[in-house]
Amino acid sequence: MHFMYALQAAWQSRNSLLCVGLDPDPARFPAHLQGRPDAIFEFCKGIVDATADLVCCFKPQIAYFAAQRAEDQLEALIDHIHDRHPHTPVILDAKRGDIGSTATQYAVEAFERFRADAITVNPYMGRDSVEPYLEYADKGVILLCRTSNPGGSDLQFLEVGGGERLFERVARLVANDWNASGNCGLVVGATFPAEIARVRQIVGDMPLLVPGIGAQGGDIAETMQAGGNSAGTGLMINSSRAILYAGSGEDYAAAARRVALETRDAINAHR
Amino acid sequence: MHFMYALQAAWQSRNSLLCVGLDPDPARFPAHLQGRPDAIFEFCKGIVDATADLVCCFKPQIAYFAAQRAEDQLEALIDHIHDRHPHTPVILDAKRGDIGSTATQYAVEAFERFRADAITVNPYMGRDSVEPYLEYADKGVILLCRTSNPGGSDLQFLEVGGGERLFERVARLVANDWNASGNCGLVVGATFPAEIARVRQIVGDMPLLVPGIGAQGGDIAETMQAGGNSAGTGLMINSSRAILYAGSGEDYAAAARRVALETRDAINAHR
Repeated sequence: MHFMYALQAAWQSRNSLLCVGLDPDPARFPAHLQGRPDAIFEFCKGIVDATADLVCCFKPQIAYFAAQRAEDQLEALIDHIHDRHPHTPVILDAKRGDIGSTATQYAVEAFERFRADAITVNPYMGRDSVEPYLEYADKGVILLCRTSNPGGSDLQFLEVGGGERLFERVARLVANDWNASGNCGLVVGATFPAEIARVRQIVGDMPLLVPGIGAQGGDIAETMQAGGNSAGTGLMINSSRAILYAGSGEDYAAAARRVALETRDAINAHR
Repeated sequence: MHFMYALQAAWQSRNSLLCVGLDPDPARFPAHLQGRPDAIFEFCKGIVDATADLVCCFKPQIAYFAAQRAEDQLEALIDHIHDRHPHTPVILDAKRGDIGSTATQYAVEAFERFRADAITVNPYMGRDSVEPYLEYADKGVILLCRTSNPGGSDLQFLEVGGGERLFERVARLVANDWNASGNCGLVVGATFPAEIARVRQIVGDMPLLVPGIGAQGGDIAETMQAGGNSAGTGLMINSSRAILYAGSGEDYAAAARRVALETRDAINAHR
């Protein structure tokens, strides 16, 4: 699968800019899954099967699997998405960042072991720390730019000369230099609509992954106003907890579908 | 184990500022280990047992294990270090960085699952992305500051106002704010001695993890001149490939010991 083409196709065919984040927290699983050795896989599979026709992509967060020694369940989950829901891109949310030789290992982890179609990457270590991912030209490389958390301002909002703040410099570096193969995207939090608009101005039609609606408080209308591209797409608007934990019983997947549908439609109402 | 106390004790009792980085690349293993299902563990165990009395800490790089689906061997390796070489701190080189709820999961991965004594963390997402690690007050939290790779300058060397560059701002934030529990350190590459000196000036006696000697070209004399603290310690000078692959035969561990000893002594010659 070519990530960028598959994403474009999913935006169109599913009429959706919604990304469902898969952050499985066993403490919040419904009772009938508690204690099962494959609970993480089964929980996420339920969410995926109930929402796949409503999303432009899925985004499993590797930390939730790693904390539970459940890398095998993450492998099985991504295999399941590829097998049962073809043409649905999977972004491995890993936010890796290391020197080239180590980044090469992380790229193998993400793209070969886990078979992800894209990965999130931290730009702090600069271009050569990102190149090993970029070399997989059919894979997506989504760089942190302006993150949705309060501390995001500590460094990203610093003025770095030329009238730019650090997140703007990252956006410009990625758009003008790192994106030579056209396989880059950026993470820009929904909690900062003015900065989404600024990033959109810098990067043209590049896809933006936007976390922060739902539990983190970002506003859908403002996000759409600020971030849509010239084709009325260009966004992967992520929701995790609000969808995953919409229900707490055996019908959790149906509850997740209802919230995913509402969220997709709320997004589309502003396109 | 309390990381900072154990590190202080190891500096003194082993008379060493050397950190051996464990970056196991199966393609470079000696023939007698090739193809064994536990080759990664056995290779690293050989290195650890041959060098533990010469080091102030070990630093396994998780990417090399993750790329090989070998998290179980990483668990076994760290258990082995704790069991057979007590009081030898283990830094999990993971360079994680994510919002608080996700960072909490990564902290569980590093400190509870893998039983590491310290972790490397990326500062790009700011203070709340680091707090979940800091809350483990007996664990070390080592923030990327000035990395040893060429692209390190892309962002870290930008001027951010007040006469500071980004890496200096990170050093100051960590020293004056994030280090409230006294459990922080910084990563500063040996390839930039002037910047090691500048960071030392900002952070006082804080421990610095210094990669970049050996394969990456950093100079020991310059590093010691620039980075030593008032006690003649304060540094964890990392060498990985030059020690791990000093030999290529069944005697690879003895060869590693010879190079580790030379490196430790070369460092001590400049204390």
